[in-house]
Parts: sequence; structure tokens; C-alpha cells
Amino acid sequence: MYVIMVYDVNVKRVNKVLKIGRKYLNWTLRSVLEGLLTEELYENLKEEIMRVINTEEDAVYFYLIDTYNAPHKTIIGATPGEFNFIE
Amino acid sequence: MYVIMVYDVNVKRVNKVLKIGRKYLNWTLRSVLEGLLTEELYENLKEEIMRVINTEEDAVYFYLIDTYNAPHKTIIGATPGEFNFIE
Repeated sequence: MYVIMVYDVNVKRVNKVLKIGRKYLNWTLRSVLEGLLTEELYENLKEEIMRVINTEEDAVYFYLIDTYNAPHKTIIGATPGEFNFIE
Repeated sequence: MYVIMVYDVNVKRVNKVLKIGRKYLNWTLRSVLEGLLTEELYENLKEEIMRVINTEEDAVYFYLIDTYNAPHKTIIGATPGEFNFIE
């Protein structure tokens, strides 16, 4: 399935969350990672994230799209060069 | 179709982008809005956004999911109370 992960976490934990996310997904915008994952890898990702966030302060959303193709995406503006596009 | 809009724009333009986005979508996380839109409304949204962003500095992503149902979403951590959930 295709997973879009968006986070809004305390700046103290951004690096940790990002580091875990990037083990599984492509980082495509400041607070967005995305990519194809198996159910099992998605569960691992979620577990790892849960271990580092503060559930009182931080929020992480996972959108799960049941497809083997990425959803259609339109980008307006700058394509952020700092991110590791693997697409 | 279901639209997920994610933005990373200069702080000077955040309010403008958010104000436009909220005319069309629900604001669900700091830099995320989402909801069902017709093709026509989506085009209007995109046009309005293009008028206010600086395409050298800002980036806005639209994920378009061809469905009448929201994709499955898992939220970890705090549900941000400040956002206008209409779900």
C-alpha cells in the first residue's frame, strides 16, 4: 500500500521522527514522507514512531492508500531540492 | 475525489495559504488540509493558491485520490484540538 506520513512534533523530536521515517519512506516535503510499504513494514514504522514521540504533544498521521501506484500528485511552486526524492 | 493538501511556505504567506485552503478543505494538522472536492473546485483552489505563493520559495503538494471515501487514516499521538475537524 502507499503510505503518506505527515508529522507535527516538538522540535526536540523532529530529528528522531525523521530518521525513523526515512528508513521506510522517501522524504518529500519538510514534514511529509511517502512511499510503498507492506503491511508489516508499516506496522514496524508505526511502532518505532510510537516509541519516540510524546503523545501529549506530538501528532503523526498516516494515510494508507490501497494501491500499488502512488496517488496522483501535483506540486505547485518550488520542488524542495534538499529532500531525497527517490521517485 | 479526496484531496490532501500539504504546504511548506514562507511564514509570511502561511496565513494567506491557510485562509484559501480552509475555504475548500478541512484543516487537520499544522500544514495539512484535506477533504472531498469536485475537479472544478480543486482547480479553483489550485489557482487561488498559485496567485499568493512565491514559486521560488514555497511548495504546495496536492495528493489526489480517486475515491468518494476518505483514505484510511491512522493518527498517533495528540489530536490537535486547535484544528477545525469537520469529520
